[in-house]
Amino acid sequence: MGRCSLLLLLLLLAFLTPGAANPVSPSLRAPSSLPWSTSFRSRPTITLKYSIRYIQQKVDHFGFNIDRTFKQRYLIADNYWKEDGGSILFYTGNEGDIIWFCNNTGFMWDIAEEMKAMLVFAEHRYYGESLPFGADSFSDSRHLNFLTTEQALADFAKLIRYLQRTIPGARNQPVIALGGSYGGMLAAWFRMKYPHLVVGALASSAPIWQFNDLVPCDIFMKIVTTDFSQSGPNCSESIRRSWDAINRLAKKGPGLRWLSEALHLCTPLTKSQDVQRLKDWISETWVNVAMVDYPYESNFLQPLPAWPVKVVCQYFKYSNVPDTVMVRNIFQALNVYYNYSGQAKCLNVSETATSSLGVLGWSYQACTEMVMPTCSDGVDDMFEPHSWNMKEYSDDCFKQWGVRPRPSWIPTMYGGKNISSHTNIIFSNGELDPWSGGGVTKDITDTLLAIVIPNGAHHLDLRASNALDPVSVQLTRSLEVKYMKQWISDFYVRLRKMN
Amino acid sequence: MGRCSLLLLLLLLAFLTPGAANPVSPSLRAPSSLPWSTSFRSRPTITLKYSIRYIQQKVDHFGFNIDRTFKQRYLIADNYWKEDGGSILFYTGNEGDIIWFCNNTGFMWDIAEEMKAMLVFAEHRYYGESLPFGADSFSDSRHLNFLTTEQALADFAKLIRYLQRTIPGARNQPVIALGGSYGGMLAAWFRMKYPHLVVGALASSAPIWQFNDLVPCDIFMKIVTTDFSQSGPNCSESIRRSWDAINRLAKKGPGLRWLSEALHLCTPLTKSQDVQRLKDWISETWVNVAMVDYPYESNFLQPLPAWPVKVVCQYFKYSNVPDTVMVRNIFQALNVYYNYSGQAKCLNVSETATSSLGVLGWSYQACTEMVMPTCSDGVDDMFEPHSWNMKEYSDDCFKQWGVRPRPSWIPTMYGGKNISSHTNIIFSNGELDPWSGGGVTKDITDTLLAIVIPNGAHHLDLRASNALDPVSVQLTRSLEVKYMKQWISDFYVRLRKMN
Repeated sequence: MGRCSLLLLLLLLAFLTPGAANPVSPSLRAPSSLPWSTSFRSRPTITLKYSIRYIQQKVDHFGFNIDRTFKQRYLIADNYWKEDGGSILFYTGNEGDIIWFCNNTGFMWDIAEEMKAMLVFAEHRYYGESLPFGADSFSDSRHLNFLTTEQALADFAKLIRYLQRTIPGARNQPVIALGGSYGGMLAAWFRMKYPHLVVGALASSAPIWQFNDLVPCDIFMKIVTTDFSQSGPNCSESIRRSWDAINRLAKKGPGLRWLSEALHLCTPLTKSQDVQRLKDWISETWVNVAMVDYPYESNFLQPLPAWPVKVVCQYFKYSNVPDTVMVRNIFQALNVYYNYSGQAKCLNVSETATSSLGVLGWSYQACTEMVMPTCSDGVDDMFEPHSWNMKEYSDDCFKQWGVRPRPSWIPTMYGGKNISSHTNIIFSNGELDPWSGGGVTKDITDTLLAIVIPNGAHHLDLRASNALDPVSVQLTRSLEVKYMKQWISDFYVRLRKMN
Repeated sequence: MGRCSLLLLLLLLAFLTPGAANPVSPSLRAPSSLPWSTSFRSRPTITLKYSIRYIQQKVDHFGFNIDRTFKQRYLIADNYWKEDGGSILFYTGNEGDIIWFCNNTGFMWDIAEEMKAMLVFAEHRYYGESLPFGADSFSDSRHLNFLTTEQALADFAKLIRYLQRTIPGARNQPVIALGGSYGGMLAAWFRMKYPHLVVGALASSAPIWQFNDLVPCDIFMKIVTTDFSQSGPNCSESIRRSWDAINRLAKKGPGLRWLSEALHLCTPLTKSQDVQRLKDWISETWVNVAMVDYPYESNFLQPLPAWPVKVVCQYFKYSNVPDTVMVRNIFQALNVYYNYSGQAKCLNVSETATSSLGVLGWSYQACTEMVMPTCSDGVDDMFEPHSWNMKEYSDDCFKQWGVRPRPSWIPTMYGGKNISSHTNIIFSNGELDPWSGGGVTKDITDTLLAIVIPNGAHHLDLRASNALDPVSVQLTRSLEVKYMKQWISDFYVRLRKMN
């Protein structure tokens, strides 16, 4: 796999499957730092109560030759659900274990009572436990053939129909799709394609335009850079200079060994390709930190302090330092992300692409439908220059999966920028979130609404409320609830008219 | 295959693929009676000028394991097209040769100049020349696996994007989807699923609700019966009694031979099952006559006189006649349909399901997605009682194709009766058309419009204008043009606002 493509592919992996693609080896983590056990530690009194259930789904909704089914997992919480005037909030699960998403979407739990809502979290096929071919699901492109957004949306459609058929009182209730990141894209697309099943969608941090040439490929890295330049003096400039510092040191006789020791790498660098991999891994780290630049101590990708970009930037105050000092500063900064718990003994560069299912699935999706071009030029951003090379990307995909991406398919299927005929979708984006560059940040019509959250990182609005939340996200959530209540109210008005 | 299911399946074949499922052997037709050579004989001065073109399509739009492509055929006529303020009228081809549909959709040709329109007729995959696996396309369920409405709509989407990319001046033009019968369903569904590609759809005689339990299964046969009872005294009553007349005669010693001779059958009846097949074939004939009950001499399914149901009913004026007289009357009535040209030497019962590609393709579609329940009770309709038995239907499909139908899929995918969030679709239905029972015959919103055409048969509005057209269809076409012009005008207003 080519250097540039590798970086870009890994970026995709890392951004959209932050938990799964976390470049830290699980063995480095203390057990208590697993995201799902601690994500709600800021609200220790709340225990999420849900039932785990399964539904038989067709492996292929769009063909009849394979009639095989598989068990899709979903979670249901109905503590606050009311049959009378209630609603169903349906999380369109993304590329990972649904329990992790459930635990990281505190917003739905926070508003359940107010919305008289049943909460449903549907796991995306090929992730978590919802594996169409069990252990063989990722064995080859034949088994992976049913991992597409269309199949995932069809699963959601069948699940909603099933719930409304089988749960007394659920039939005549409005359903709202909610999701963040890739799950936010799915929520928006679900409303576009199945408006008969959901009255609206909340698509948080959903970069539905990060495809083809709908937005410039460099927009993502520019936003990361802005986050860093705003979080400390000389911060982005120092990082921009850091790559050459590493390059220069790597060229010296004992440079690789020195770098390995200075950065406390678990596996020492031994050849020049290792240096590129090191830089890719560091780049990913800064991107990840930007994504989760939350205003409070959190544990989404990693246990992290409040405003982690600011903390990282404390080590990049000076851009004109000797190369060795620069590298020691990089190590301190990396430590913020990889060792906030203080328990890591070394840093593991080789685990940027783990063998976990989430990563495999997303890697395949990025090589088929979910082709989201990113690039950098080192001038308007703080990264080394990487152009977007579709040919190389496609060749790499073919080598890895035996399939070739179809980069124009998603805009053909889901409308690209021409989506104004749809209704009732809220697109929320945190201004700090690199993915906001591919998101909808301006109202399209009076029912296709954009909310931009200053000081907000990746789908901050979907997280549980927190005493340290900026006012902007509090207002955002109020607006979101207001719109969702309006959709629900409209639904019941229509229902009464029909009866 | 069970008796009842056979009938119903054949009905489906016959109704929606009238030309292809035509029960007359092609050898019985004079060459000049082929539909495409004579369909415009009422307007002999007009010659349809189009180019035949091909586009490479993915066999599987929804999976990446099979990257094979095939040639989809389409026709383009741009004589009247204007780059400035023009439009593209896109026929969403149904289950047959696209040239046949092109020649039978005179409405589009009639309005091309007024709409400054480019006409495009897209052939449906697995029909005509657009065969994904060539001669092997129908060999088994593996090769047929890509024959679905979703794949067909995706072909249309890719074709529109391709045309707009490659034809100078076509990029910023509004596209309208048009279709009749199954093609009308596709036009409506295309607007629902790809509203970014078409500004609206004209869905003529599109029974989008003839699925599951959205309408009563007996509605179809009731409408056929009404057509006959309104077209002559005692007509439907005579036909209702005719089945027992045939049954009684068949039971007598030389009954089968007598029936065979009286009906001039090409192949004599020899066993009791043949009698059921005979009755099914006659039933289908009456259904077909009802569908094409046009007010002028036409040649859609067959060369036929004006108002053919009336002509048929001339032979059913008396319901209380001896059985032998009844059968001779049936023969005369059948002759109206099968021998208007006067050249048939005998009538061929065994050809109700021909081996033509259209029939094979539709039979598969009816056994997978396009499950459209019909039934009759012999009381409220003039047919022998046939209940709808999904289990039997499914078993028959499995025997024939190795696949099982998913009868609830189409409503899940396309919304069933809950489609009010969509916009800009005209549903037109002829009141005489049996398929109007499963169609949208009342406005849903002020942009989801229903037009019912009194005295109109199956998609009469899509046919070329004719001096004998009733005022109702003239008004219908005016309304359709008015709405389509509104969509086009709205499009250009939006376009100007954006620029």
